[in-house]
Amino acid sequence: MEKILRINMGAEGGPSFSEAPIGELAGLGGRGLTSAIISKEVPPTCHPLGAENKLVIAPGLLSGTMAAMSGRISIGCKSPLTGGIKESNSGGQPAQVLARLGYAAIVLEGKPAGDDLYKIFINKDGVRISVDNSLKMLGNYALIERMKGEFGDKIACISIGQAGEMRLPAASVACTDVEVRPARHAGRGGPGAVMGSKGVKVIVLDDNGVTMRQPKDPDKFREANKAFIEGLRKHGVTGEALPAYGTNVLTNILNEAGGYPTYNFKEGRFAGASRISGETMAGVETERGGVPTHGCHRGCVIRCSGIYNDKDGHYLSKQPEYETVWAHGGNCGIDDMDKIALMDFIDDDTGLDTIEMGVTIGIAMEAGLLKFGDASAAVDLLREVGKGTPLGRIIGSGAAVAGKVFGVERVPVVKGQALPAYDPRAVKGMGVTYATSTMGADHTAGYATATNILKSGGYVDPLKTEGQVELSRNLQIATAAIDSTGMCLFIAFAVLDQPETFQALLDLLNSFYGLNLTADNVAELGKSILKLERDFNFRAGFTKEQDRLPGFFKSQFVQPHNVNFDVTDEELDQVFNF
Amino acid sequence: MEKILRINMGAEGGPSFSEAPIGELAGLGGRGLTSAIISKEVPPTCHPLGAENKLVIAPGLLSGTMAAMSGRISIGCKSPLTGGIKESNSGGQPAQVLARLGYAAIVLEGKPAGDDLYKIFINKDGVRISVDNSLKMLGNYALIERMKGEFGDKIACISIGQAGEMRLPAASVACTDVEVRPARHAGRGGPGAVMGSKGVKVIVLDDNGVTMRQPKDPDKFREANKAFIEGLRKHGVTGEALPAYGTNVLTNILNEAGGYPTYNFKEGRFAGASRISGETMAGVETERGGVPTHGCHRGCVIRCSGIYNDKDGHYLSKQPEYETVWAHGGNCGIDDMDKIALMDFIDDDTGLDTIEMGVTIGIAMEAGLLKFGDASAAVDLLREVGKGTPLGRIIGSGAAVAGKVFGVERVPVVKGQALPAYDPRAVKGMGVTYATSTMGADHTAGYATATNILKSGGYVDPLKTEGQVELSRNLQIATAAIDSTGMCLFIAFAVLDQPETFQALLDLLNSFYGLNLTADNVAELGKSILKLERDFNFRAGFTKEQDRLPGFFKSQFVQPHNVNFDVTDEELDQVFNF
Repeated sequence: MEKILRINMGAEGGPSFSEAPIGELAGLGGRGLTSAIISKEVPPTCHPLGAENKLVIAPGLLSGTMAAMSGRISIGCKSPLTGGIKESNSGGQPAQVLARLGYAAIVLEGKPAGDDLYKIFINKDGVRISVDNSLKMLGNYALIERMKGEFGDKIACISIGQAGEMRLPAASVACTDVEVRPARHAGRGGPGAVMGSKGVKVIVLDDNGVTMRQPKDPDKFREANKAFIEGLRKHGVTGEALPAYGTNVLTNILNEAGGYPTYNFKEGRFAGASRISGETMAGVETERGGVPTHGCHRGCVIRCSGIYNDKDGHYLSKQPEYETVWAHGGNCGIDDMDKIALMDFIDDDTGLDTIEMGVTIGIAMEAGLLKFGDASAAVDLLREVGKGTPLGRIIGSGAAVAGKVFGVERVPVVKGQALPAYDPRAVKGMGVTYATSTMGADHTAGYATATNILKSGGYVDPLKTEGQVELSRNLQIATAAIDSTGMCLFIAFAVLDQPETFQALLDLLNSFYGLNLTADNVAELGKSILKLERDFNFRAGFTKEQDRLPGFFKSQFVQPHNVNFDVTDEELDQVFNF
Repeated sequence: MEKILRINMGAEGGPSFSEAPIGELAGLGGRGLTSAIISKEVPPTCHPLGAENKLVIAPGLLSGTMAAMSGRISIGCKSPLTGGIKESNSGGQPAQVLARLGYAAIVLEGKPAGDDLYKIFINKDGVRISVDNSLKMLGNYALIERMKGEFGDKIACISIGQAGEMRLPAASVACTDVEVRPARHAGRGGPGAVMGSKGVKVIVLDDNGVTMRQPKDPDKFREANKAFIEGLRKHGVTGEALPAYGTNVLTNILNEAGGYPTYNFKEGRFAGASRISGETMAGVETERGGVPTHGCHRGCVIRCSGIYNDKDGHYLSKQPEYETVWAHGGNCGIDDMDKIALMDFIDDDTGLDTIEMGVTIGIAMEAGLLKFGDASAAVDLLREVGKGTPLGRIIGSGAAVAGKVFGVERVPVVKGQALPAYDPRAVKGMGVTYATSTMGADHTAGYATATNILKSGGYVDPLKTEGQVELSRNLQIATAAIDSTGMCLFIAFAVLDQPETFQALLDLLNSFYGLNLTADNVAELGKSILKLERDFNFRAGFTKEQDRLPGFFKSQFVQPHNVNFDVTDEELDQVFNF
């Protein structure tokens, strides 16, 4: 983690690379590092697919250490979907492996002149960049099988599917999990399209022969980690709900709360919710010999991921996340869990953001291309993307573009990015985050559901406007900081509710780096990241007018609570007053 | 011209209308009136296809009078293409007829709940709105034949083709010409999509039984008109070049100047230019029994339009304009004039902006869907739009969307609207207008080619940055004013070069309305319109960052002059300093 690898894909005579000490960026990791590099080095008005954009891949500050939950990797760029700055992070193994290889970041720069496709192999001996056009238009799963054949099965990969190669705005970057499957994704905002524009199909990481990163104070670190793990295990969300049912435990909760967006955000409850809930899913997984409780990276103690088998007991997909189940499920009026898992697989294989895809399919339903509830037609539509047909390209371009192409008015996007699985009218804190996040509509940017619905970190009534701005602000600040540590965001429940778990997190950082960070320092880090990001967006031409939800959330009331989004524009403009 | 007709397409129980005196908007016409209404009544952040947007159709101040050249009609809305304010104006007969019927504007408001399609008939007896679903998905030509069958051939029509019904962002509004053909279009920025979103297929105007509008001082008016016509006849551009060869006289001129964008703005000269020039076209038209010199509306004395027949002497299209010939021609590497005329016809029939379509086909060529120069493939591609296939919908969504869907970086748009037929690097005054116009890239918004290339209104070296900002500023101000009069913009050549012709224009306005307008008043009118428009765009979320050309015009030099666009951002930001 003391060096940065820069790969110039546009160098004369073919790609070249150089390594340099992290230098003045020392102390930054994950989102803090990607946003610092993008903010400083990428012209905000450049074309996202051009040579001036960069793709920055950075493990977090604690990635590659013994610290539990430290497996998140941040991927940053100027977003082809939003036109603003983007950090999208993923679980899986690459964060740990890359950090242990000593890299604080890989920066893909420039743009190759031809249309050759490259693979990059990195191990303790160095970096090898080679043309491999035989990989063209492979799905992520077939690609990773090829890489395992070539480099063995101890690798971790960062890759794109067909969507990234086609530079589609909803293309994700895939990260392999502990089974070396490309099932974890930096999904949002099109980082896969940027990787595709650089001509890079896959980065293969091999940490054979390198050791775990060592803390400055090993004893304190071990102790802190123990306290941290204890804190996670004793909290209801991280110790019980998530392990048992995965993130999809939220389906019944949000549906009960009347904040489950149904039929392209027309209703707040879905009649078929129980058929696709986390509880139902865990039962099916167990029954079919899948795995309902599983970690997406080594060192995970929450273990909210899983493996979803088909009726014959064969691997169909990883256990789909709540937002994925919602996007392809209730949002599209679909309650067929097998088809939803199949769509999850297609998204992962093609390299697509599941939220963006589900919302885009909903737009196509709104436009009359297929009927709400028609799961088979939805699967067929999604398969078009990987084929590169015109229809597939429209879908792979995301909801905002599909709305334009199909002439649809009801398009739930902010800054061009689709809204996730929480109706902003019935979970108003989420609405504030969607509207104001530097990332476009993004639930992870300031997960107000925690406090609005799960009563974690206190309670703010989800149906009232009072307190939502402050809640979203604080969560956005905390999240930007957590996204820099490499920690999975789910630690936030325990950290918000248990002071000793928050202290354990600080102790992990302090004992590893020999620092004396306080809660205030963490908040300052979060604020500084948000300021950088927001400044980038302003320089890219964004104004407060982009910090708004689509008009229909104001004008149309959602049932069962008969509420609209009534946080005022003036209140929204207060979120970044710090 | 003393009343405004408002048609509420979203009224309970079906569309309703009301008429009211023009009131405080008196003194405004054309663009001045459309922009005033849009600016005041349309929420700048509303969805362009939503109930809150309005389509305002306004003849100019002198339309419907005996004044020569007064046949322009302005169509305003929030643009589905740019997201900003839009005024797009058209020749043809509707301006004269609507003005004589006494309407300063028709305002289409609201949005019908169902998917019925309406026709609106207006004559001296009033307004009739009726459902006519038999018109669904008719092209403009078949539609107008139907209207002639129903209402006789003394009508003037304002209509949309399939593109408008599909609410595609590049959909135009068609206006019939003197032969009652839907060959003149308010093309730019997607007003046809807004008309489609209102459920209005066609507005049929019949001025049977109404008289020409009468001036306050008939003698002075007649005299002014005479002087005005004399001025137009004696100027080289309006008296010779345009009548003889139409606007396509520019092909050879721009090609010679090295400012003819070729192969999607890769080169500044096209080897096939002479085969598609105005001179060649006029010869072919004459040879085939077409008409090379013809007015698009009664009262035109420049007569730059024409009729282009096929090899068998049958009508193929109106004489394609220079920008149309360029967009489908040199921009796509195509030098087949018959195919270009056919594409002009398809655009008009489907209801599409020819500039946006040509540039979008160029993007598809850039993406490898078809080859530069393949005229037959281009025709086939364009035909997809009217069929409503996914590919057709992409093309009909314009260059910016197609660029996203096809993953292309080289997309020549400003504010989402395609650049017209003048390379901004070799005709830098045009570059300033493209970048800063409130309309997105628009040559008519401040036609610096006049002074850069045609040496009208003085001379500013097209290859140098000096003087371009001032030139574009003055032209944008003058144009906003001219666009309010109903006068064809081509009068500008004579008005710029001959003080007595400018005075004749003032005399026309003054004697008609009993005013004492001076040149300063005209400039003030232009400035006030631009300020309203720019303010709307700011309120819609635009900043100076949208007043920029795509980066490749800076980084890539164009031949033969080996020039880039080097007017600085700081200079561009001075355009609206008035």
